[in-house]
Amino acid sequence: MTYEDDSLMLHTDLYQVNMAETYWRDGKANQKAVFELYFRKLPFDNGYAVFAGLDRVLDFIENFGFTESDLTYLKEIGGYEEDFLDYLRNMKFSGTIRSMKEGEIVFANEPLMRIEAPLAEAQLIETPLLNIVNYQTLIATKAARIKHVVGDSTVMEFGTRRAHEMDAAIWGTRAAYIGGFSATSNVRAGKLFGIPIAGTHAHSMVQAYRDDYTAFKKYASTHKNCVFLVDTYDTLRSGVPNAIRVAKEFGDQIKFQGIRLDSGDMAYLSKKARKMLDDAGFPDAQIIASNDLDEYTILNLQAQGAQIDIYGIGTKLITAYDQAALGGVYKLVAIEEDGEMIDTIKISANPEKVTTPGSKKVYRIINNENRHSEGDYIALEHENPQAEERLKMFHPVHTYISKFVTNFTAVDLHEDVVVNGNINYQSPSLEEIQNYTASNMKLLWEEYKRTMKPEEYPVDLSEACWENKMNLIRDIKAKVKQKVE
Amino acid sequence: MTYEDDSLMLHTDLYQVNMAETYWRDGKANQKAVFELYFRKLPFDNGYAVFAGLDRVLDFIENFGFTESDLTYLKEIGGYEEDFLDYLRNMKFSGTIRSMKEGEIVFANEPLMRIEAPLAEAQLIETPLLNIVNYQTLIATKAARIKHVVGDSTVMEFGTRRAHEMDAAIWGTRAAYIGGFSATSNVRAGKLFGIPIAGTHAHSMVQAYRDDYTAFKKYASTHKNCVFLVDTYDTLRSGVPNAIRVAKEFGDQIKFQGIRLDSGDMAYLSKKARKMLDDAGFPDAQIIASNDLDEYTILNLQAQGAQIDIYGIGTKLITAYDQAALGGVYKLVAIEEDGEMIDTIKISANPEKVTTPGSKKVYRIINNENRHSEGDYIALEHENPQAEERLKMFHPVHTYISKFVTNFTAVDLHEDVVVNGNINYQSPSLEEIQNYTASNMKLLWEEYKRTMKPEEYPVDLSEACWENKMNLIRDIKAKVKQKVE
Repeated sequence: MTYEDDSLMLHTDLYQVNMAETYWRDGKANQKAVFELYFRKLPFDNGYAVFAGLDRVLDFIENFGFTESDLTYLKEIGGYEEDFLDYLRNMKFSGTIRSMKEGEIVFANEPLMRIEAPLAEAQLIETPLLNIVNYQTLIATKAARIKHVVGDSTVMEFGTRRAHEMDAAIWGTRAAYIGGFSATSNVRAGKLFGIPIAGTHAHSMVQAYRDDYTAFKKYASTHKNCVFLVDTYDTLRSGVPNAIRVAKEFGDQIKFQGIRLDSGDMAYLSKKARKMLDDAGFPDAQIIASNDLDEYTILNLQAQGAQIDIYGIGTKLITAYDQAALGGVYKLVAIEEDGEMIDTIKISANPEKVTTPGSKKVYRIINNENRHSEGDYIALEHENPQAEERLKMFHPVHTYISKFVTNFTAVDLHEDVVVNGNINYQSPSLEEIQNYTASNMKLLWEEYKRTMKPEEYPVDLSEACWENKMNLIRDIKAKVKQKVE
Repeated sequence: MTYEDDSLMLHTDLYQVNMAETYWRDGKANQKAVFELYFRKLPFDNGYAVFAGLDRVLDFIENFGFTESDLTYLKEIGGYEEDFLDYLRNMKFSGTIRSMKEGEIVFANEPLMRIEAPLAEAQLIETPLLNIVNYQTLIATKAARIKHVVGDSTVMEFGTRRAHEMDAAIWGTRAAYIGGFSATSNVRAGKLFGIPIAGTHAHSMVQAYRDDYTAFKKYASTHKNCVFLVDTYDTLRSGVPNAIRVAKEFGDQIKFQGIRLDSGDMAYLSKKARKMLDDAGFPDAQIIASNDLDEYTILNLQAQGAQIDIYGIGTKLITAYDQAALGGVYKLVAIEEDGEMIDTIKISANPEKVTTPGSKKVYRIINNENRHSEGDYIALEHENPQAEERLKMFHPVHTYISKFVTNFTAVDLHEDVVVNGNINYQSPSLEEIQNYTASNMKLLWEEYKRTMKPEEYPVDLSEACWENKMNLIRDIKAKVKQKVE
């Protein structure tokens, strides 16, 4: 039997469905639960991350609901019974989601999203939310790293052929734009998200016309804006001279935007090519480089005085090649019991895997004098850090390290994006999101933005939050010990 | 303006569209071109790769065609004129594609697919074909590596939350199945591809019920097949004893399949847990391990005598974490000129990037005596290696290394999957593809399958193919030199 791909509801782990069944049969499915989505470690040893994925998450929530083909499949394969399938058939998402905005600068161990929903519903959306947020946040962060290194130069996304299948190509491009990229080669990403698209011709065109000169001439005869790819046969002896020759021959008939280098020593070739272009009277022609570039290679090229105006980044961006996964998790922090919310914890032999219990808010503590962030402050729901005159911030692992902050603004970083199942948020335009990222980056001191060995940005727990965690650890340990004795 | 996501035709690089325009205006769009899709280097320093992606490629070809929303977008954004848009509107794919079968064992520098089509059509499909084949082949290869290490143990795919967005989760799972995985946690992948699905419960369920015992009991009350996750609070002091307690209490009411370990030292914990299960009278209860595993960790765990029956693999598989991209390329090897096919080449400063010109076939040379592969033999279209009594095979880089093979069968590895635009291939079932991979692996000597430092499998060019390449290099060099002088 084949089933139609008419829904994303089963884009989840099977255990979510099985837990939902247990909860439902046990009368627990509608108990209110609070889950928090966060990651434990910044990717790329970077000093910050850039949150992305909310738009797609909201789309998923808006379309929440099992189709008949989903239910038929579950019945056929999973052997679920009709009463449970009926429950799923009628299930709508009725929860509330608080979330960071896309383009927000975020850090390890702070809730990026907080989901308050009936236990079974909250559980079913875990997997798709992580799938979306982990990847898009990873790529937005990689893009911001690269953009930070290139400064005022332009970076374009060229990675579709190496992306992990089609969704990654287009959502990764969108995330790259959020992180500061200017354009993409993927036309569908342009169509769907309004991202500027870029691209002229490939090596195959030069091969098809047998030589650089003919190929460039044919392209110039059919397009106004021309960037010639110059390394099909020999960059400095054939590609660049023929690009110049065609640019001269066509004069004002075309806009000779520049050349693209795609192999060889980019530092050497770009300097030589720059001189050839300048000498030929084309000082405005730009040099575009693309060939397995990433922020490290670019830093090195810059150090060698490479003359590159635009970077085309493919594989290393779209696959986040040097760290291809963000380890975001989704943890239960509180659950309703007899009408009251009870905080929960998960203990682990790995200390960084112990969760922080309780419904929490994340505040960015902005120094009113210098308009920079002093750190992020994670507090329990009921706390109000703005009311404090001197806010005590202490390191969540090395708790003896602490500082006091005065004259600050505590900005709640979460928005209620879904309220009782209804979407309560209108995504800004992608350009606005990109600008939001850029303006957020300005709140950060330079030491957190360094490409290598950045300082650690403070993400602190309130004292109440810390004590609550310690108490729960003590309780659990006592319970386990008691049982063993 | 927003556009509907009703087509994958624009899931390509902009330069493909721009080249198509040049070709069309220049009367060159319908010249027959031959492109070959291949990669230059095996991933993971592995000794072989497993081809995957054909099914999705054929689906793309079947749906080839621009929609009105595609054309409107191109007009609005790209400024393309009506006559060219009309040409695109009427474009169908009319080419012929020869391809490896899914599950084929493949190697570097051999054409996985050969596309013969009008130049413009062949160009437009380059990007989606690479996007699909690069990712799926990468994951099928990673999966086969892992499967080879676990031997008769079972491996399951658990990676959706870390996959690069949704397509990667489901197509990656399918590729993993081709490589030898037995099941997935992703329910949608089960629904779409018929892959067996697996999963019971998460840590959050133990948290929600506040202790292991209650949680396991509730699960056992509502499900026949039980695997209990034992590391929420304390594996050996709470998780395993409570799993055993519930298994004893429920007796035949449930099928106690085993326990899952998800943190801590897997070697130590699995041995201790094995003993506890055996002592309690559950020698058939299996131990499932999942926690950032890959083939290297598994090799180490095996060396330490870990007692693991089933491995759940997430991040490291689905993102191909240690090498997150396969560098497949798509190169023009021949083009029609005045009714004749002319071979083409791309030269590069990097020798491995020089292409091999001409339409080629790939033969697997099977030794008739021992039924193992002697190597792969790449020959020009017109050659017939089976007709040779003694086949000379020589190393394509170190050409002085050569050997003669006699008493062999030369198997053409390509099938005509698309003929003049029509799909000519019925994909086998996924299970048949998995079996095909496994049987192909048996043709390979063990030295090519070693996880670390495998021997290099011979992929040789025929002498005619080699000489053709050398001649073209000489021609191009002479041409470039001539121009400089």
